[in-house]
Amino acid sequence: MTSRLSFNSMTADRCSLPEVTEACAAHGIEWIGPWRHKVAEIGVDEAARRIADAGLRVSSLCRGGFFAADGADEDNRRAVEEAAALGTDALVLVCGPPATKDLPLARAEIERGIERLLPFAAEHGVRLGIEPLHPMMLGERSAIVTLGEALDIAERIGDPGVGVVIDVYHTFWDPRLAQEIARAAGRIVGYHVNDWLRETSHTLLERGMMGDGIIDLHGFSAMIEAAGYGGPIEVEILNPAIWEMPLSELVPLTVDRFERYVL
Amino acid sequence: MTSRLSFNSMTADRCSLPEVTEACAAHGIEWIGPWRHKVAEIGVDEAARRIADAGLRVSSLCRGGFFAADGADEDNRRAVEEAAALGTDALVLVCGPPATKDLPLARAEIERGIERLLPFAAEHGVRLGIEPLHPMMLGERSAIVTLGEALDIAERIGDPGVGVVIDVYHTFWDPRLAQEIARAAGRIVGYHVNDWLRETSHTLLERGMMGDGIIDLHGFSAMIEAAGYGGPIEVEILNPAIWEMPLSELVPLTVDRFERYVL
Repeated sequence: MTSRLSFNSMTADRCSLPEVTEACAAHGIEWIGPWRHKVAEIGVDEAARRIADAGLRVSSLCRGGFFAADGADEDNRRAVEEAAALGTDALVLVCGPPATKDLPLARAEIERGIERLLPFAAEHGVRLGIEPLHPMMLGERSAIVTLGEALDIAERIGDPGVGVVIDVYHTFWDPRLAQEIARAAGRIVGYHVNDWLRETSHTLLERGMMGDGIIDLHGFSAMIEAAGYGGPIEVEILNPAIWEMPLSELVPLTVDRFERYVL
Repeated sequence: MTSRLSFNSMTADRCSLPEVTEACAAHGIEWIGPWRHKVAEIGVDEAARRIADAGLRVSSLCRGGFFAADGADEDNRRAVEEAAALGTDALVLVCGPPATKDLPLARAEIERGIERLLPFAAEHGVRLGIEPLHPMMLGERSAIVTLGEALDIAERIGDPGVGVVIDVYHTFWDPRLAQEIARAAGRIVGYHVNDWLRETSHTLLERGMMGDGIIDLHGFSAMIEAAGYGGPIEVEILNPAIWEMPLSELVPLTVDRFERYVL
């Protein structure tokens, strides 16, 4: 089971990428999902070397997107190049907040941004995975807040180079979840796990370790499997309490919880 | 326009109900939407007298619900009696969190709880308004987190005594909003306004005053009007920064923002 576990670097955001790759290798993890700011600390070539030296493969690069930001198109092309250089075929897209109060317009502009990026990504062998974020993150991070909307965009574009990244934290609340995951068959670029803590007061930094919250992770994973996704599963947790743990405790805890709760 | 403004007591949660009713009357407000804990402070008979003396009508009572809690059925019948005693035909339902990780089960049990309450509510001339809360409130307050799910329940029950309460804060993010509001025609028991502040880090206490955030309130109200709702519109804001304002400033500010942003 652990062969599908990918350690997303955000789960240990206070550590360097070499520290994380070494800890993953030491505990039998085979995949890593790096964020770009961690890659930038040592440069993409050095990052690729370190990851390869540790015997790891890259499940995806986090993240492109933020289509309404200045210079977004250029930055997104760099993200594609970095993904290709790291040897992954998946770039996670966090699409960015709406520029105005016109949400349908913001969503249409995001779709056009993805369409502009697609040919460049295809040339580099990189698929674009639209990650719907939790609706509470709309104002600061993403106008795309449901799996249904992400799939609508992917279906309209209708190219195998555009799919979705499904994170349990962002989507588990959705009463349409089962039908949307079934609809996602063939378009799932990535699957992220963690947990929703029952008592949550912060909109960004209270993501939980698998098993500590209220998400039916086995049931979620069964839907993802039934939709045909058999790729790596990233553990991505944004939480200062997790970040304070030494890697020598955090990485084995992650493996244990993954084996008990995810598959 | 102000004739449709209803001041929800939560917007001034640090004040007593008599203080709020007097301030509303002094500034030309005709409706109030009290919470039960404010009614309980002075008793329901005294609350009804104070509200009548101020020349106000009650748009709704907040709140019943929490169907998985101990003693929920009995407490919800008391809420119905209080609503009737206050002269309103609307009880807002906040349905409560799931007891387990089984969300479909939690939602089915909520539906059965509403069905059990319905005959008693009908005898008292009180309609039940299911209020979907923002998905970030699922773990602590409500398993019902989309307008679509609330409408599915109301349609399955199929009784004019069960409808929905639509709050802009809880629902504006939904890409299916327009179609769901249109579907809600004839079932809208209440409409709540406030705003979503672009930078939001707290899941409960950072609701904004109309005009301070990113919700297209005029567009939202137009959809509500098109669905045929012409009743009172409650201003409900949970925010300590708002609660610190004296009523002599807060109430006229509320009237001003309502006139400029809501209709």
